[in-house]
Amino acid sequence: MTIPALALHGGCGAPAPEALGVADWEALHRDLAAALHAGHAVLRRGGPALDAVEAAVVVLEDSPHFNAGHGAALCEDGRHELDASIMNGADLAAGAVCTVRRTRNPVRLARAVMERSGCVLLAGDAADAFAQRIGLDSVPNRHFTTPRRVQALAQLKALAQRGGIGRASEAERHGTVGAAALDAEGHLAAATSTGGYNNKPVGRVGDSPIIGAGTYARDGVCAISCTGMGEVFVRHVVAHELAARMRHGGATLEAASRALMEEELAGEDVGMGWVALDASGQVVAPFNTLGMARGWVDAEGRGWIGVHREMSCLGRL
Amino acid sequence: MTIPALALHGGCGAPAPEALGVADWEALHRDLAAALHAGHAVLRRGGPALDAVEAAVVVLEDSPHFNAGHGAALCEDGRHELDASIMNGADLAAGAVCTVRRTRNPVRLARAVMERSGCVLLAGDAADAFAQRIGLDSVPNRHFTTPRRVQALAQLKALAQRGGIGRASEAERHGTVGAAALDAEGHLAAATSTGGYNNKPVGRVGDSPIIGAGTYARDGVCAISCTGMGEVFVRHVVAHELAARMRHGGATLEAASRALMEEELAGEDVGMGWVALDASGQVVAPFNTLGMARGWVDAEGRGWIGVHREMSCLGRL
Repeated sequence: MTIPALALHGGCGAPAPEALGVADWEALHRDLAAALHAGHAVLRRGGPALDAVEAAVVVLEDSPHFNAGHGAALCEDGRHELDASIMNGADLAAGAVCTVRRTRNPVRLARAVMERSGCVLLAGDAADAFAQRIGLDSVPNRHFTTPRRVQALAQLKALAQRGGIGRASEAERHGTVGAAALDAEGHLAAATSTGGYNNKPVGRVGDSPIIGAGTYARDGVCAISCTGMGEVFVRHVVAHELAARMRHGGATLEAASRALMEEELAGEDVGMGWVALDASGQVVAPFNTLGMARGWVDAEGRGWIGVHREMSCLGRL
Repeated sequence: MTIPALALHGGCGAPAPEALGVADWEALHRDLAAALHAGHAVLRRGGPALDAVEAAVVVLEDSPHFNAGHGAALCEDGRHELDASIMNGADLAAGAVCTVRRTRNPVRLARAVMERSGCVLLAGDAADAFAQRIGLDSVPNRHFTTPRRVQALAQLKALAQRGGIGRASEAERHGTVGAAALDAEGHLAAATSTGGYNNKPVGRVGDSPIIGAGTYARDGVCAISCTGMGEVFVRHVVAHELAARMRHGGATLEAASRALMEEELAGEDVGMGWVALDASGQVVAPFNTLGMARGWVDAEGRGWIGVHREMSCLGRL
């Protein structure tokens, strides 16, 4: 029997320590911990990695503190379009959705696409309609809106009106949530969900719903969920590149992860991060930004969460 | 200076020799040859691989004999949704569109997304609107419809009404067109375009617009465009897997291509094929189906086209 492992992230576009008040930081940490608990609870009772990553991501989607589900970024038209994907390392089954507008938990919909649609990727209205048909929670688009995102969009629009660029800063483009897990039977899984970035063009799809770019899992190799400038992750097929460096290049998870950031992606000069784990449960969670909301469970079953350099121990979960 | 190379395909779901009349086979071969000429003309005058693959794919999109652009498969709602992508091996720049309904040449739109949108993947109405805004040819959705596709959809619907499955056969799901090229400066590029498959669910996206799945190009390694059961190509990240086996596993194009089909994908038991070339202009064009419309230019500058086992020489292009 394998010792289960779990790692998750809430995006590598974390605000500076002084940008949020104490209450907001506390709430954000509480939700990170809740997501870790939700995923770990599945693994502890012997459940599959696939259920664990879905459970963790659902908590992050429902939290207003992360850019996915409720709390998602707003498109240039003032509405939300959400992307998500999930992958099962045991059989490489995968499901994904892009530009959905009415499904409360896109990661649940991605899983339903994988298991019940005969497709791997469903786009737009058709994906929302499928969600409704199979009984997943449908919500009005404004369910996803938080005051913080409305304010951010208004600021970008005002900037554009004054002749500025009006585009989300590079750092603001890194809001995503995701998780990777290894279960007691040795199976790996990963999931990712996002609202994209503030003032993004309608119809823009990033790496989060792209298998091999934002999400990848393969038993015996690794599971990974990415965050960062989505376009760069699509072009470099980042999630699959990590697996390929391990599988065909013989690299360890740590070496492959380091080479990916310091060689493959170094020339891109954008913010990036990911959480990944290998078949032995080893975890990496690198990022090159100010901070990345993240958490994991170590081999002794202790939970850790953090956003900037320091991690806090939650004790044994 | 490198000797340029070009390879293209019109899908691995080719009909049996007896399924089409002589005139249709002639017309199909004529359009294959025209696509090869169009791409090769760019390379011969020293143009970039990116222009060559776009030119070749545009001809295949405009031909009624291939499942892309005019001649595309119909969705279950009797309309067309088209997917395409393009990638430049020199800088890994890429562009893609999915579920577009009104843009005459989706591959041109994919290129415009790459060069002028700041995005890598644009979906649905927003992609069509972008095309219109920048002046690409917009057409009514029925522009893409051919009698053959209308008949095929009617047959599937009738089958479903009689209690049959009403789904396109596995073989029918392999309509796609694509090209890979190497130019005189040693740059690689690839492009892919498709209408999906007959009676496909609205909103379904396959591998053709997914960088790393249906299309990939990287200077010094390879360029590849895939055809086959899209979902399998997405889950196995096939196009990038070929590159990874060469880049990290040290395999030649031929060995990597063979291992991909005979090991990586063998368990999937679906129809598949691709055209790919390496940095020296070596071409592979494997398929495991009855036939794959395909063509290439050899090192002596002679063009070859074929659909089933035999290839016909077009002489020096």
